[in-house]
Amino acid sequence: MRDYFWIRNVQDMRMAEGVEWALHSCLNLSWADRPVPAARLAAFFGLPAPYLNKQLQALARAGIVSSAPGPRGGFRLERAPEQVTLLDVVVAIEGREPAFRCTEILHASPFGDPAADYVTGCVISRAMSGAELAWRRELAATTVADLRADVAGQYPGSAERTREWLAQARA
Amino acid sequence: MRDYFWIRNVQDMRMAEGVEWALHSCLNLSWADRPVPAARLAAFFGLPAPYLNKQLQALARAGIVSSAPGPRGGFRLERAPEQVTLLDVVVAIEGREPAFRCTEILHASPFGDPAADYVTGCVISRAMSGAELAWRRELAATTVADLRADVAGQYPGSAERTREWLAQARA
Repeated sequence: MRDYFWIRNVQDMRMAEGVEWALHSCLNLSWADRPVPAARLAAFFGLPAPYLNKQLQALARAGIVSSAPGPRGGFRLERAPEQVTLLDVVVAIEGREPAFRCTEILHASPFGDPAADYVTGCVISRAMSGAELAWRRELAATTVADLRADVAGQYPGSAERTREWLAQARA
Repeated sequence: MRDYFWIRNVQDMRMAEGVEWALHSCLNLSWADRPVPAARLAAFFGLPAPYLNKQLQALARAGIVSSAPGPRGGFRLERAPEQVTLLDVVVAIEGREPAFRCTEILHASPFGDPAADYVTGCVISRAMSGAELAWRRELAATTVADLRADVAGQYPGSAERTREWLAQARA
């Protein structure tokens, strides 16, 4: 039990690098003019291809990207950039479980109601859920198209350079 | 490296039960009319006292609770309930590091600027930080006093019953 707690305390509440990798991959794929192999996407950021591939598969299961086999195959963005929100990507990688997980400790209290649903009934659970809803709303309000517009304004030429690099034959 | 990734993927983005325990403890302490030993606070929810004590110590380091030694000692809320926000408690337990941690993978990209600060410069990092700010604002806008008012409205008598139970001599 001690080890279990120690691990939780170290890791808690931090997203995996997978979210960062997946968001950057979606943005890069939105600029690509042809399917991009996972190895090429990974090479762009110097990431380990098998681990990035794991994130890409999660994005594929969520219908955000799709992949085609073969020498000209690879990943492409399956939906329009306007149709991919940050929340879509976070949920694809991290799942739908909330960051604050009410374990209903009130059930064990001297005045706990065995029939109560404290996930929705406990004032603490509700307050924490409300805050998380604000976070999800923000994530849902930003799309890959918004990221593209931000990059176009802040780093002109970046989209074109990335498109060309991703299309190059692999070394 | 594989084990490391596996652990991260399982644990990521979930807060420890410590946050739930700490919030409930702060609420209970706000109702108590005398210092409450960690063991008594733990017994209320059937929690393991040493682990709850760890959370209480974190709250003490943050100045949210204080503890006095001795047979009549125990923990008390150090600040007024109006002065303890949900964000105070979350930060005391989980730390200040954001849930989305930008690892600046753009530095490794073919067009990365070695001098750039991508934590603030990357459009993805900024969008994720903006969403997290919305979450923190919500947490900062709710205090233990708000939780008390919610309980008073929804579960009348709960505060009084809890106060009496916490004051009882231990079995």
